[in-house]
Amino acid sequence: MQHTRSPFRPIPDICKEVQEETRKHMNQLTKPTGSLGCLEELVIRLAGITGEKIPDVSRKAVVVMCGDHGVAREGVSAYPQEVTGLMIHNFVRGGAAVNVLARQANAEVHVVDVGSLLAEVPEGVINRKVRLGTDNFAERPAMSEEEATEAIRAGIEIVGQLRQKGVQLLAVGEMGIGNTTAGTAIAAALTGQPAAALTGTGTGIRQEGLQRKIRVIEQALEKHRLSAERPLDVLSKVGGLEIAGMVGCFIGAAQERIPAVMDGLISTAAALIAVKLDPKVLPYLFASHLSVEPGHRVLLDALGLEPLLHARMRLGEASGAALSFPIFDAAVAIAREMATFADLGLPDPE
Amino acid sequence: MQHTRSPFRPIPDICKEVQEETRKHMNQLTKPTGSLGCLEELVIRLAGITGEKIPDVSRKAVVVMCGDHGVAREGVSAYPQEVTGLMIHNFVRGGAAVNVLARQANAEVHVVDVGSLLAEVPEGVINRKVRLGTDNFAERPAMSEEEATEAIRAGIEIVGQLRQKGVQLLAVGEMGIGNTTAGTAIAAALTGQPAAALTGTGTGIRQEGLQRKIRVIEQALEKHRLSAERPLDVLSKVGGLEIAGMVGCFIGAAQERIPAVMDGLISTAAALIAVKLDPKVLPYLFASHLSVEPGHRVLLDALGLEPLLHARMRLGEASGAALSFPIFDAAVAIAREMATFADLGLPDPE
Repeated sequence: MQHTRSPFRPIPDICKEVQEETRKHMNQLTKPTGSLGCLEELVIRLAGITGEKIPDVSRKAVVVMCGDHGVAREGVSAYPQEVTGLMIHNFVRGGAAVNVLARQANAEVHVVDVGSLLAEVPEGVINRKVRLGTDNFAERPAMSEEEATEAIRAGIEIVGQLRQKGVQLLAVGEMGIGNTTAGTAIAAALTGQPAAALTGTGTGIRQEGLQRKIRVIEQALEKHRLSAERPLDVLSKVGGLEIAGMVGCFIGAAQERIPAVMDGLISTAAALIAVKLDPKVLPYLFASHLSVEPGHRVLLDALGLEPLLHARMRLGEASGAALSFPIFDAAVAIAREMATFADLGLPDPE
Repeated sequence: MQHTRSPFRPIPDICKEVQEETRKHMNQLTKPTGSLGCLEELVIRLAGITGEKIPDVSRKAVVVMCGDHGVAREGVSAYPQEVTGLMIHNFVRGGAAVNVLARQANAEVHVVDVGSLLAEVPEGVINRKVRLGTDNFAERPAMSEEEATEAIRAGIEIVGQLRQKGVQLLAVGEMGIGNTTAGTAIAAALTGQPAAALTGTGTGIRQEGLQRKIRVIEQALEKHRLSAERPLDVLSKVGGLEIAGMVGCFIGAAQERIPAVMDGLISTAAALIAVKLDPKVLPYLFASHLSVEPGHRVLLDALGLEPLLHARMRLGEASGAALSFPIFDAAVAIAREMATFADLGLPDPE
């Protein structure tokens, strides 16, 4: 999958020995082998990432990358562009869905402005603004490769700081009016699937808007001559600043050995770009939910990951990722607390 | 769907007015209408059940119904029958998967012996033993209709007691070696699907055992002349005492206006029997996860309910139901805590 040599810090390997220890431990617990399905695979994967037989992911954080999109001017969203900025204020005040879901999961929320149109970044927001929104990719590249790289570096650095603070599990999401158009264009460019099969209604556009959105994506794919072999080019031509920021979060999480939970279409598009830039990101990625957006399943298939939650969500903000956090806690608790066959006086199944 | 007049206490209607109030409230929250998918439907359904615009389901309980199966003697399970009793001890000591998952969700666990082979029911277990295991339904009816009814009444009474204690949300699961054979026989009898399409490997039998299990079910269906129109007959002929106990739990939950969360194949088979006995049970039922057992999807389809979790679990014990509890908490928290459009100075979408 690697076509570009990653210009970023190297990513450590997964610890296979610890994974094997954890797998053996799971088979000694009082249940038929493998009967807890994804919970068992989850804890085994976490063990390989953290290097701990019983991994600790109790300290959790959600990063919400925010940016505005020039392509919103093509009438591809049900909401005006100002909503990005309003929602940034909402995140800081704790009133958005992701705030509620993060509180439920005992996770902190970090809001990053990588490129909204807000002239003044509100207090409480991490200001890593690269520029005031992208250009309209129906007309020209959304941004330069340098700008995309700057946003990626912002994501990497922020995750590095979270690691310093002790964060052990990360959810990565976004806010940006117009960004399902960008995310779907990326999905089409990276998977080769036709735009018409991948495009959904985003925040809730109607049939006419949907047709326009498909046309905008199709024309952009042709205009910018995108190729799955040039992920950074795809990101800068039809991506977004918050998407680039999320690419950085996924790369940074892998560098820091932090398991990183993807959200829906846009977050997963960023994750696939990160994997195309460096395939060693992949073992650090976790799918949370399956979005209503049709492009999401295609992106998850490209990564070979299965979502745990099928909740017909389509909100973004890392809301689905945050909703999945208690499942991570449950998987670890199973490994930590269940009785073994020996405890019941039964022979080990292995 | 009602073919039998229910011999049990009447079930109250759902409060449609409160549901409508909650639906309106959800549409005022700062997110595209409906973008939280199943979370929104969940909280609206809970509102209709509890009669509260912002429902409170914080007090949670898991009931694990336990019983033994004569049909286990046909070699349909990977485990010996004694494991039912060993697991009852494990539940009481808090070492089973459901104990761990319930602790994570801040839920209490109630273990009920409705018919295990244990001569002595351990302390901490609710003793409602109807008899020492069922008969082998490959040879004769598993139990009489009177015995099945006694087990149903036990379930109803236990849920009544839990309501007295303030329980607001209930997960219903089971333990009983051999009971995927019983659950699959019920699924085949109630849905008319062929046994071969519904039968799974349960605790983990191999190919030869699977073929034997299918044959046992096919022959029992023919021998006992089962009909979807006689649910109590199906339950007593090929069911189990713990399955009848769960039927009682679902009926009792509806009587007491407690939302009841189904687990996997066997729990859902019990729920479908409950709905066949009284269709007014249906609005009180919630699907949690989709089991690996092929019969589970067919039962959920018969109920018209969609599972939230796709985690390839196949353990029983109410483990999948308990794992879904935090999603209920999250849905309610969304309704309770999210900002409205008015809070952001935006007009209401309605």
